[in-house]
Amino acid sequence: MSTSTRRGRRPGRPDTKAAILAAARESFAAAGFGGTTIRAIATTAGVDAALVHHYFGSKEDLFVAALALPVDPRAVIGSALAGPADEAAEKLVRTFLSVWDDPGFQPALLATVRRVLEPGGDKLIREGFLPVVLIPVGEQLGLDRPELRMPLVASQVIGLILARYVVRIEPIASLDPERLVAIYAPTIQRYFTGDLGG
Amino acid sequence: MSTSTRRGRRPGRPDTKAAILAAARESFAAAGFGGTTIRAIATTAGVDAALVHHYFGSKEDLFVAALALPVDPRAVIGSALAGPADEAAEKLVRTFLSVWDDPGFQPALLATVRRVLEPGGDKLIREGFLPVVLIPVGEQLGLDRPELRMPLVASQVIGLILARYVVRIEPIASLDPERLVAIYAPTIQRYFTGDLGG
Repeated sequence: MSTSTRRGRRPGRPDTKAAILAAARESFAAAGFGGTTIRAIATTAGVDAALVHHYFGSKEDLFVAALALPVDPRAVIGSALAGPADEAAEKLVRTFLSVWDDPGFQPALLATVRRVLEPGGDKLIREGFLPVVLIPVGEQLGLDRPELRMPLVASQVIGLILARYVVRIEPIASLDPERLVAIYAPTIQRYFTGDLGG
Repeated sequence: MSTSTRRGRRPGRPDTKAAILAAARESFAAAGFGGTTIRAIATTAGVDAALVHHYFGSKEDLFVAALALPVDPRAVIGSALAGPADEAAEKLVRTFLSVWDDPGFQPALLATVRRVLEPGGDKLIREGFLPVVLIPVGEQLGLDRPELRMPLVASQVIGLILARYVVRIEPIASLDPERLVAIYAPTIQRYFTGDLGG
């Protein structure tokens, strides 16, 4: 087994990468993002920690890779939200729908949603997706209290995803994306920047 | 096996009632509410259709019984929403939180949510819960377009339930119920009676 730490594009041994990802999923699910170390993942996978960094980059990158999403949510959400915070909701809903409506992405996204809804999967969201992806996006947008506002945004986006793609409730499942943008953007914009009554 | 059709409070044979409920769950999940008949359920359970009515009442009542909820959602939502439609959201969020925060109800509610999120469970919501419980509530409230508005309400309530009770995302999981009422009631009130931009 190679323990090379050289940088550069190399495919890597598929079984080694799979072993690292399996160890990473197990550790993130059991211990959360904060309780997981690259060193412990490497030990479980039987490889050198440097090899984990070589294949996957930072701990944040490894976490996102372990989610097995078809797209990197940091890139998608980050670029969707570039620009003023008071236009963020419309862009977010439009981008989410375009990614989720894409038949090339939808099956993998659905599989991820089902996985995090299984017992134990909650920790992946709570101690991984939130601090690694969601809260940093809110900070980048310059939101007041991103640690409150981003979970509220998530609570409506999750509900929309479940209604449209998982449970497929009509008319939400079939509505034109731009109708859904008109319906949901005001809700999410208020969670981003509006008065929350407290 | 009794095939009595007499009315009145009698406990019924537990194994017969369980067989009827099992047959009902199977049929509602496979064929939806509209595609299910009391007669077919009775045949599967090996009893007379009159006995099904005797034990469970109407097909709507049997559907709600098959959901195995700790409370009848028609009674809870109906009484919560008694009064003018423009105050409905605040009452709905407050009632939902009080039922869900009750440790006597929460485990059974969580089990129901997990069941409907499993493959196949979507039909129970789409072809059962919506037409039997949700849309009638919207009609009772006199909403304009209840068949659009009630699913929108559901999409935010589902997201709140997942965030607070299933995934337990902070701060939503620990916030005081009245803070959550202040945050979510304006969203849900707009879905009930507001401008949806289309």
